[in-house]
Amino acid sequence: MTQEEYLSVYRHSLSHVLAKAVIEIFGKDEVQVAIGPQIADGFYYDFLLPRTITKDDYKTIENKMREILKRRETWTRKEVSRSEALEIFKDQKFKVELIQDLPEDETISIYYTGDDFVDLCRGPHIENSQELMSAAFQIKAVSGSYWRGDEKRDQLQRVYVYAFPDKAQLKAHLAFIKEAMERDHKKLGPQLDLFMFDETAPGMPYWLPRGWKLFNALLSYWRDIHEVHDYQEVAAPQIQKKELWVTSGHWAHYQDGMFVMPGKEENGSDTYAVKPMNCPNAIKIYQREQRSYKDLPMRINTVDVIHRKEKSGELNGLFRVQMFRQDDSHNLVTPEQIEDEIRDIISIASELYSTFGLEYVAELSTRPDDFMGDIEVWNQAEAALKTMLDKTYGEGNYEINEGDGAFYGPKIDLKMKDCLGREWQMGTIQLDFQLPLNFDLKYVDKDGSFKRPVMIHRAMFGSMERFIGIIIENFKGSFPFWLSPVQVGIVPIRTQHNEYAKKVADLLRKNRVRFEVDYSDKNMKEKIKSFKNYKDPYILVLGDQEAENNTVSINIRGNKQLHGVPLETFIEMCNTLNDTHALDLIESIEE
Amino acid sequence: MTQEEYLSVYRHSLSHVLAKAVIEIFGKDEVQVAIGPQIADGFYYDFLLPRTITKDDYKTIENKMREILKRRETWTRKEVSRSEALEIFKDQKFKVELIQDLPEDETISIYYTGDDFVDLCRGPHIENSQELMSAAFQIKAVSGSYWRGDEKRDQLQRVYVYAFPDKAQLKAHLAFIKEAMERDHKKLGPQLDLFMFDETAPGMPYWLPRGWKLFNALLSYWRDIHEVHDYQEVAAPQIQKKELWVTSGHWAHYQDGMFVMPGKEENGSDTYAVKPMNCPNAIKIYQREQRSYKDLPMRINTVDVIHRKEKSGELNGLFRVQMFRQDDSHNLVTPEQIEDEIRDIISIASELYSTFGLEYVAELSTRPDDFMGDIEVWNQAEAALKTMLDKTYGEGNYEINEGDGAFYGPKIDLKMKDCLGREWQMGTIQLDFQLPLNFDLKYVDKDGSFKRPVMIHRAMFGSMERFIGIIIENFKGSFPFWLSPVQVGIVPIRTQHNEYAKKVADLLRKNRVRFEVDYSDKNMKEKIKSFKNYKDPYILVLGDQEAENNTVSINIRGNKQLHGVPLETFIEMCNTLNDTHALDLIESIEE
Repeated sequence: MTQEEYLSVYRHSLSHVLAKAVIEIFGKDEVQVAIGPQIADGFYYDFLLPRTITKDDYKTIENKMREILKRRETWTRKEVSRSEALEIFKDQKFKVELIQDLPEDETISIYYTGDDFVDLCRGPHIENSQELMSAAFQIKAVSGSYWRGDEKRDQLQRVYVYAFPDKAQLKAHLAFIKEAMERDHKKLGPQLDLFMFDETAPGMPYWLPRGWKLFNALLSYWRDIHEVHDYQEVAAPQIQKKELWVTSGHWAHYQDGMFVMPGKEENGSDTYAVKPMNCPNAIKIYQREQRSYKDLPMRINTVDVIHRKEKSGELNGLFRVQMFRQDDSHNLVTPEQIEDEIRDIISIASELYSTFGLEYVAELSTRPDDFMGDIEVWNQAEAALKTMLDKTYGEGNYEINEGDGAFYGPKIDLKMKDCLGREWQMGTIQLDFQLPLNFDLKYVDKDGSFKRPVMIHRAMFGSMERFIGIIIENFKGSFPFWLSPVQVGIVPIRTQHNEYAKKVADLLRKNRVRFEVDYSDKNMKEKIKSFKNYKDPYILVLGDQEAENNTVSINIRGNKQLHGVPLETFIEMCNTLNDTHALDLIESIEE
Repeated sequence: MTQEEYLSVYRHSLSHVLAKAVIEIFGKDEVQVAIGPQIADGFYYDFLLPRTITKDDYKTIENKMREILKRRETWTRKEVSRSEALEIFKDQKFKVELIQDLPEDETISIYYTGDDFVDLCRGPHIENSQELMSAAFQIKAVSGSYWRGDEKRDQLQRVYVYAFPDKAQLKAHLAFIKEAMERDHKKLGPQLDLFMFDETAPGMPYWLPRGWKLFNALLSYWRDIHEVHDYQEVAAPQIQKKELWVTSGHWAHYQDGMFVMPGKEENGSDTYAVKPMNCPNAIKIYQREQRSYKDLPMRINTVDVIHRKEKSGELNGLFRVQMFRQDDSHNLVTPEQIEDEIRDIISIASELYSTFGLEYVAELSTRPDDFMGDIEVWNQAEAALKTMLDKTYGEGNYEINEGDGAFYGPKIDLKMKDCLGREWQMGTIQLDFQLPLNFDLKYVDKDGSFKRPVMIHRAMFGSMERFIGIIIENFKGSFPFWLSPVQVGIVPIRTQHNEYAKKVADLLRKNRVRFEVDYSDKNMKEKIKSFKNYKDPYILVLGDQEAENNTVSINIRGNKQLHGVPLETFIEMCNTLNDTHALDLIESIEE
């Protein structure tokens, strides 16, 4: 049995034990049991109960489960006919409904836990409860649910249980959960005054002053890198006529995801839609002039705001939004340039991700059965991608998903693991042979003939918003110096030191260090505490000594203290720390 | 007679002369004359003619007009009854229609120019054609128009004529027109690769790479100034639920100007609209926490994209668009802080405008009859504004438009004159007592009581897009160094100098100078010409000499040449020139 199968048997069996425990506590006639499947970190079971389960019940239920396990009951599987099953479960209306939905001639398996509890189940299960004796489980939560997810049916109570093979694994998981909660960007973001949401704009973040500084620091870093690689940033319209979306294919394939503004004309000629993607804009810019092979590669980069409709239940902080900015480039290349271009893109990815200490793996998705376009172009492109991936990562050091590419071109996904081991789809490098065709894009080749360029859709952060969500969690709100919204908090000890604080502030501003000064008459400790709560990396404390000697005292990341640092030395420190590559140096200063 | 009345008589009379000339040329039975009013730089007259007037006809018509003037005919005014008038004009259908539309009992005045031409006119006119002998006029254009602007009525030809009292004034005006055309941002913008428009997004500019660099240079300068004045920049949602717009009053008063996305619910609860203004966002941010008097003034600044619907005929390059970014701050203050806050805003305005060499005048608009809110608050606010304006500009050195304020508060407009003497509404400082009421905004005052803040809507550039349109025209595309999209063009003389060019480029990048290198194998002159066409301020020419000695040769603004400038000296020059205040220095270097 694989570890996975083992976990499944084990959790399914525990879910029967939970059902048995709940029945014993509330009484057989009072409980209707629904279903109890396994989930990522345990299982749940849905019940119709005479009253709401509260936190006070958790211990009672857990203890009853343990008591049941100690009975060392035998688990028996039986196969019964449909009519036998209906007789056995006649008092359990949900089970009756489930049985009735099964095909007439299907053999039905049921499982007995001891003599007095029976459940409808495909199995497999354990053979005796004692196999679960080392089980580690804990009720996670109870929430409302509907029978079969239908709001018009019975409202049930869903009991979620963490379940692991032993205590060590449960403990590790609980620690992970605690850590994830402490890092949760939905909690940290508003707490650090980075962003907020309002019910009048669901899934559309408000960037507060500190968050917007963080955003712009990230953007500025991203711009610097792309400047070196000859990317050209543009900004384009956000609202465009239906006509454009029809040509691009979005109207046919993505209409439900778009915010649409109907006009007055019946033919829709004055209907507009808010853009969910930037591709058509890049194409319009490409089409502005006749292009030659000398103009390629042409890298049209943007961070324009885009909007995509999501179901409200699927919104999730910055991870799943309705308004965001993709760091979205459309690189137009000749077929021969594909390999070099992909190599260059990968080198940007490596640099970007390593700055954040994030590791990534590449996945290549190749030609699907329903591909469009010339098979020769596909072959050439895929060969180029493989050659490049082989060279960069070594053969076999990346994944290949055969046949998993889009119909319009192969792609490379870059997936990242965060500090909690969670995997994120981050960068995408999507080749596209189709859109240049839809819009009839051309370039004049060396021989004077018109050829069709290939388009590469390319994002590194994916969504800037989501990426910020990830790094908030990854850094737990303590950002590297260069990225911190406020890099230096300045605390004049008393108001008489405000003048010196202003002098320090002016010098920092001149050196483009982001700072905040607390000129208020609050006491020093309160001021320091406030900056610490914001997790601002450096806090300067300025009193008589400092003012007299033109120095600063520094509180670094809330633990290390440096006194009497000359002002010029501190400015030098800031300049050094502002280099995104200065990680070692930062550590040597900060530790 | 005032100059204005004089011009009016003069131009109206010339328009009769034009009509007489056209009739004499085309023949009395072939011409139907419509109307001929004065316009800003002359007049026009609408005709129904047997054929289209071409440029070849202009001279013929002008000469005929001069010939008519030379006849020194007497102009005679007559008053006639309705039926007399109908008889006189019986062959002129448009005049007949005009007469029929007059009230039954109105006395109708007609004017004879000599014996053979009569026109329906209120007058006054000249007494003899010789008064127009010194007249300077010239046909400007002929375009199509409809009788009474109605597409279903006769299509007419509108003959536009420049008309001035003498040749000198006409000449000056023609020079102005030529200059304005050469400076036209709609021509210069695309020519310098700054922006473009596409028919799928009318009035919504695409910022091309060079334009976006210009935009960001401007934004960066604007941010630096506001940072010093304790403004906090945010970014907010662009699409919001109807509910918000109902509260803000935009739904009732501005719905036609908004792009609206209807939802599925009949009550409109899932209807969204794209924002035409940023005010409600600022309010949501203010409302995020309970605010105290210590938090005020709170300056919530943004350059978010906004959209406003315009009629397609009213779109005008960057001057009138449907998508733009306001540099829009909402400053929340206590009533006592109004004067200081306005003073601070005015000081920002003075600094910003002077950087561009633009002069401005202030206009105060005061309480209208239909004002809302507490008259005491109005009085206090207006007194504060006047005191501040008196102090800043001196009494009488600003205009007051009594009763011209909005119903929700008094305002100060800052109007600017550009290089062609055209006036632009630029900055607005609008007090608002109403929106804080609609949204029930509060702050806790010193005594612990809740008070209502005053909101100041404030924009300096107005629309960033329009401002860029203005400065493109003002600088004729030759921007100051600090604002130039590309500050330095680099020309390696031959490809063997590319390596040295790359070294220079790396150094410039490190110093955050915006540059472009032409590494191609084109010849030197071609490369230089291309940068000159872009009006890039500095062009470096790099050959053997320069590479050997680590120097650069500089072509400054296409006229001054400097040879053998050490690389470090050039970097210093760039750093100095990048200071927006270094105008004198720039001139000393550049001249």
